[in-house]
Amino acid sequence: MTKNPIAPELLDKLENFLSTYSFGKKPDELYDPIRYILSLGGKRIRPLLSLLSYGLYQDNPEKILSQAAAIEVFHNFTLMHDDIMDEAPLRRGKATVHEKWNANVAILSGDVMLVRAYDLLLPSPADILGKLIQEFNQTAAEVCEGQQLDMNFELRDEVHEDEYIEMIRLKTAVLLGFALKLGAMLGRASEEDQKRLYDFGVNIGVGFQLKDDLLDVFADQAKFGKQVGGDIISNKKTFLLIKALELAKGEDEKVLKDWLAKKEFDPEEKVKAVKELYEKLGVRKLAENRMNDYFQSGFELLETFAQSENPYYQSLLEITQALVHREK
Amino acid sequence: MTKNPIAPELLDKLENFLSTYSFGKKPDELYDPIRYILSLGGKRIRPLLSLLSYGLYQDNPEKILSQAAAIEVFHNFTLMHDDIMDEAPLRRGKATVHEKWNANVAILSGDVMLVRAYDLLLPSPADILGKLIQEFNQTAAEVCEGQQLDMNFELRDEVHEDEYIEMIRLKTAVLLGFALKLGAMLGRASEEDQKRLYDFGVNIGVGFQLKDDLLDVFADQAKFGKQVGGDIISNKKTFLLIKALELAKGEDEKVLKDWLAKKEFDPEEKVKAVKELYEKLGVRKLAENRMNDYFQSGFELLETFAQSENPYYQSLLEITQALVHREK
Repeated sequence: MTKNPIAPELLDKLENFLSTYSFGKKPDELYDPIRYILSLGGKRIRPLLSLLSYGLYQDNPEKILSQAAAIEVFHNFTLMHDDIMDEAPLRRGKATVHEKWNANVAILSGDVMLVRAYDLLLPSPADILGKLIQEFNQTAAEVCEGQQLDMNFELRDEVHEDEYIEMIRLKTAVLLGFALKLGAMLGRASEEDQKRLYDFGVNIGVGFQLKDDLLDVFADQAKFGKQVGGDIISNKKTFLLIKALELAKGEDEKVLKDWLAKKEFDPEEKVKAVKELYEKLGVRKLAENRMNDYFQSGFELLETFAQSENPYYQSLLEITQALVHREK
Repeated sequence: MTKNPIAPELLDKLENFLSTYSFGKKPDELYDPIRYILSLGGKRIRPLLSLLSYGLYQDNPEKILSQAAAIEVFHNFTLMHDDIMDEAPLRRGKATVHEKWNANVAILSGDVMLVRAYDLLLPSPADILGKLIQEFNQTAAEVCEGQQLDMNFELRDEVHEDEYIEMIRLKTAVLLGFALKLGAMLGRASEEDQKRLYDFGVNIGVGFQLKDDLLDVFADQAKFGKQVGGDIISNKKTFLLIKALELAKGEDEKVLKDWLAKKEFDPEEKVKAVKELYEKLGVRKLAENRMNDYFQSGFELLETFAQSENPYYQSLLEITQALVHREK
């Protein structure tokens, strides 16, 4: 992902930490799913942001591996519970916990994961622990609010684009912001720096989610990991669909709503038709513009931290830029 | 419940705290269920134990209303999630959250409740906050372990009585122990006192659960709040059934196993038959002896705190004794 060796080295240490951390022993049904979901991998972008953000202020980010791991464990707890709610059969190409075990195991094992996330935050200086947990709590509650809004939106006929942006800010972006802020807090950054790093994270987080929406429809199938068009097939209320529903009039509106209402269809045909409508209505362009606005706001904030001699800054820039330009 | 005015006064303050605390605003589906489950009442025994335990060491237990409320919020979080897992339709005679809303709402709203429990612990002195959260985490993980063991046992043919006692220790008793320890920690009690109060709580907690098992079968229907015999009707693996399965031989074993296997039966007839077997096999007596052993061990520990002039001690003794002698 990057030429700078810092990120891969920190990621190695993080994997080692996560795979050797003792989440608990018995009963197996409670603790095996935690080890299982963490073994499925993922980019570990959130803990990496914490480590690099700390590196802007202090040497040896491996000192905060535990707190960085807390963010990853929390993130995976949300995935375990979201997968139950979304009835998702697969996570990173493998069976989800509620499929491999059952929903009750996924509920309870997820609950313990959340508790363990707090354990992982504890090796922090006493004078900032309270503030750190308070901010973590706020973020955690916001992530839950985002998930609830997401579920609510799926049942609503109309969702305004601002509501959608607010939902993805809560569900996805605030945790990226907090990951950066956590590293900055532990690195003893000023409150102003903490806030700017948080805002950088939130901005790129919203951008990343819009990018996800775009890739799901317009990615190059040869490079994309999963089926292109999945969101169109399932009528997922993405930024693209929300804008298309707002802008389509006359025949376009009829065609779009017919496709959304159809229970039986050829998936390829539906994807092709809706994709064409997205281009025709200009919603692809609108989404790209919106995404780029968020990326720009984010990177303008990051630039204020520019330290050419600090390898953590370089790495932070590289890995976030790589995510901006990813094709899968 | 008690003649001493301390407990009712503290309970009033606690209710007021819980009903005015802001758990969050939007979306409604996330926060209404929290207010709903807390409005269903309950004895609030756990937070009361924290407040009274604090009172053994410091005046004005209302100083730790927030931390006491954390215990009650955590307890109600476990009820919300357990009710999903147990597919329970009713909680304190009212619809459970997953029935009134749906399972997804109960999962996510429960998750936020757990987060809010941590928020409520935060107004604690910085020098003990870390230790306090660490102990809370251990207790929380143990409660989850107990719930998982309980679910596992329901699917097993044989459960040993020691396994059962360990399950109820984890699922029920450790939280009573921690509630007392929390008050003691905040009251700046010695580590030895903290441990003795914890052990008192665990012992009476195991006793209370055995009392629940006994009341469900042998309570006076006129005084008992719910249907006597519910555990027998549902084949619940209580201490009584576990011991009966161990001790029944020959015809008794056949009769017991026939009742357990029957899909269609007259509930009254089943309750009567199994109850008679429990008496005949002596398992009622065995359960009562076991329960009384735990109560005795508990109260011997509590007596070491005897302070005739301390009204909080008197209240602690009164309310726990009232639970020992309850008939519903």
